[in-house]
Amino acid sequence: MTVRSQFKQSLSLPALRSYLAEFLSTFIFVFAAVGSTISARMLSPNVTSEASSLVATAVAQGFALFATVYIAAHPSGGHVNPAVTFGFAVAGHVSVPTAIFYWISQLVGSTLACLVLRVASAGQAIPTTGIATEMTGLGGAILESVTTFALVYTVYVASDQRGNRTSAGSAVGPLAVGMVAGACVLATGSLTGGSMNPARSFGPAVISGDFKNHGVYWVGPLIGAALAALVHQNLVYPSLSSASDSGHEEAVVV
Amino acid sequence: MTVRSQFKQSLSLPALRSYLAEFLSTFIFVFAAVGSTISARMLSPNVTSEASSLVATAVAQGFALFATVYIAAHPSGGHVNPAVTFGFAVAGHVSVPTAIFYWISQLVGSTLACLVLRVASAGQAIPTTGIATEMTGLGGAILESVTTFALVYTVYVASDQRGNRTSAGSAVGPLAVGMVAGACVLATGSLTGGSMNPARSFGPAVISGDFKNHGVYWVGPLIGAALAALVHQNLVYPSLSSASDSGHEEAVVV
Amino acid sequence: MTVRSQFKQSLSLPALRSYLAEFLSTFIFVFAAVGSTISARMLSPNVTSEASSLVATAVAQGFALFATVYIAAHPSGGHVNPAVTFGFAVAGHVSVPTAIFYWISQLVGSTLACLVLRVASAGQAIPTTGIATEMTGLGGAILESVTTFALVYTVYVASDQRGNRTSAGSAVGPLAVGMVAGACVLATGSLTGGSMNPARSFGPAVISGDFKNHGVYWVGPLIGAALAALVHQNLVYPSLSSASDSGHEEAVVV
Amino acid sequence: MTVRSQFKQSLSLPALRSYLAEFLSTFIFVFAAVGSTISARMLSPNVTSEASSLVATAVAQGFALFATVYIAAHPSGGHVNPAVTFGFAVAGHVSVPTAIFYWISQLVGSTLACLVLRVASAGQAIPTTGIATEMTGLGGAILESVTTFALVYTVYVASDQRGNRTSAGSAVGPLAVGMVAGACVLATGSLTGGSMNPARSFGPAVISGDFKNHGVYWVGPLIGAALAALVHQNLVYPSLSSASDSGHEEAVVV
Repeated sequence: MTVRSQFKQSLSLPALRSYLAEFLSTFIFVFAAVGSTISARMLSPNVTSEASSLVATAVAQGFALFATVYIAAHPSGGHVNPAVTFGFAVAGHVSVPTAIFYWISQLVGSTLACLVLRVASAGQAIPTTGIATEMTGLGGAILESVTTFALVYTVYVASDQRGNRTSAGSAVGPLAVGMVAGACVLATGSLTGGSMNPARSFGPAVISGDFKNHGVYWVGPLIGAALAALVHQNLVYPSLSSASDSGHEEAVVV
Repeated sequence: MTVRSQFKQSLSLPALRSYLAEFLSTFIFVFAAVGSTISARMLSPNVTSEASSLVATAVAQGFALFATVYIAAHPSGGHVNPAVTFGFAVAGHVSVPTAIFYWISQLVGSTLACLVLRVASAGQAIPTTGIATEMTGLGGAILESVTTFALVYTVYVASDQRGNRTSAGSAVGPLAVGMVAGACVLATGSLTGGSMNPARSFGPAVISGDFKNHGVYWVGPLIGAALAALVHQNLVYPSLSSASDSGHEEAVVV
Repeated sequence: MTVRSQFKQSLSLPALRSYLAEFLSTFIFVFAAVGSTISARMLSPNVTSEASSLVATAVAQGFALFATVYIAAHPSGGHVNPAVTFGFAVAGHVSVPTAIFYWISQLVGSTLACLVLRVASAGQAIPTTGIATEMTGLGGAILESVTTFALVYTVYVASDQRGNRTSAGSAVGPLAVGMVAGACVLATGSLTGGSMNPARSFGPAVISGDFKNHGVYWVGPLIGAALAALVHQNLVYPSLSSASDSGHEEAVVV
Repeated sequence: MTVRSQFKQSLSLPALRSYLAEFLSTFIFVFAAVGSTISARMLSPNVTSEASSLVATAVAQGFALFATVYIAAHPSGGHVNPAVTFGFAVAGHVSVPTAIFYWISQLVGSTLACLVLRVASAGQAIPTTGIATEMTGLGGAILESVTTFALVYTVYVASDQRGNRTSAGSAVGPLAVGMVAGACVLATGSLTGGSMNPARSFGPAVISGDFKNHGVYWVGPLIGAALAALVHQNLVYPSLSSASDSGHEEAVVV
């Protein structure tokens, strides 16, 4: 497909619907991720000293990612994360123009979710993802790339099984995606904030104006996602992924 | 269908069964929502200072909503929430007389659940949903409409997929509904109490006699639900929802 | 069927397998329920003052009940609870001799689980379920019957859908059973201990020698289970339950 | 099959893929298990006194095991645990050479996960699994064998149902495996650390250099897994397991 026809396809009605679906799902996911941190902090003023705050935001993100992947699965493939879109683009399942529109939808959704929380909550500060004081940016990027690898690899397995519509296994694909994200938030919550998602870090950074170490949440996840796409496609599931690369439809996760 | 025939249909035996199913499910859901707040408060007397109380009630509501949507799915569509019924009525999937009987069943179920808790627990106060002291009613209504949008939109997606009975995807529909509700309770629990459901707020208000800011829990959820119905039906999934509008049967979620 | 042939059937090889399955599942479930209370108490010596202990045991019971219903579904129907067996017997789906052998298997499984925990943990006291000091036995029995109603009604819905083997909905039946149990533990944990299951209360009582208010955990659950069976079968799902009553095979939950 | 042909088969391309899948899944699972303990400890410096730390690591392990069993189910059967592989080998479903390569993949994956956490977190100590001070090694081994029995028995049931590809029940198999593991971590977390998995204990022991009581985490789980395999195959599900023993393909869990 030429770039021109790719671009044309990326403005078709189904494509526009997919951007709206990504916008809505990322809005809801980031609302849950940031809101749960705010709600937990209001209950436990000293948020750095209670494991139940970590449980609260990890469960919120796991549950919300499952639901938002589920509701966007048909129209957009349920990426809800620029790193997932990047992985699909690297593997040739999503065209570059489509990926760009997905990224814009996701970043705008995240930013708006943080804006609504800030305005409606009458001034609660929007918490950003950050790395533990003793850690380096490199350490943070490594941890973010490991956890994003786990997340995007799971998205790939869930997508593959969709081809086999009669397999009951695929019913739990979005659930596996949400649960692995929740587990990774619990694993790295105190180290990097457990982002795995540039959009989840971008919105809070814009609304709070705090971009400290923000690069960690792009470099880490994008490297992890690209690695996951390559390992999945070339090493573990080579026979299943080779089918087609004709647009965003193939990336659907259900 | 004329209003007369709609009303007649709303008193048929399957319709009466659907009201009983809504009554039972809303009773159980509100019992879990309010009971979990009471049980957590009894363990941590200072309920406003521990994130684990938030986790307790959010998990209880997420789990209970999943189960109560599941058990009512066949007889009534598993609304368990006047805002969900309102969204289906706005979209033309449920007739007005049926919607009114659903509302009555839900509100009576919620009130009875709170009464049982009050009597059997020997006088534990029934906690109501309220907004954080620094917030305005408008801010509360905005947050409630955002979270209800997420909930009702997920209900719509789960309902659509039911048409496709062979799709394994629909098996997790009620689970996605419960999990997004749990995530939203975690997100707004300290801000608005995370209701998303006029019935969930109504019963505690009646039994405790405290209707402060009660309007927030009707205005916010009803606006959010109507928006979700319109966005789903007209923008994201236009081809799927157009099929029919012949009564409560179409609204079934499984 | 005569009592004689019922009794003969209850000693067939598949029947013996079903008793072993009930024994194993109840052992595992009670091990998780009681063990999680012990583990949480060891971390928080003052167990009556932390909501996270409630979350720990509720999540353990919800997860464990899902898994133990799932693993026993084929051989025994996955009751894991004398109240569930009682409800099936009241509704005529399980014969009286079979029900008696189920009860024995469940009670022995529970008692052995508590014995293993007591011996292997080098003397940790086995916590029993009890009612809050200000409550009456009647209040406790009411709350236990309400929560058991929710549990057994969900079991019934999950069982019915099994008839329809092609329905993906049934895949999540055992999950709904586990999650509603978890929600009810959160709702009544501080009031009655959230048992809903005479076996779950019996084993700890035997091993600790503390039978205070033990009757509450038989009267409440058995009434709730019988009510759930009758309401389900006669009012909400009348057309679906009428099929057959020829032994324990019909009670299978998957 | 001769040992020679078994060994040859264990070096085929699908076999190599299965080892990579086991490596990746065990890496991700142990990363979540150990990382969540570290993150909870950083929030609550006195990790031995808060039940929410137990909830954090139990939920992380339950969610992560579900996802890692799910993503490895097709290529390797999703063992993610040397005890599971041992159970399948005892029951004759996996050849000895294949089992050895699985073990190596799992132990290397676990060790690398701990190494990454240690290096990237700038020196956080890697927590090992240990037994409570008042307990004996024998008591610890008994509890580990009980919980591993529950885990491996669930894996077996989930594997059996896969034969019946049209059964929707199998869709939740990996979920049941993850949830029973989470429940068992909650049950024995304060007593033995809730390992059930020699690989989960091996990596932290290597990286921290602390092998105290390490034998408990091999003896207990291997005995429990062998018992689960024998009880499942010979007593509860005898007709289903007898089919075949021709290599790792039969052990697939979906």
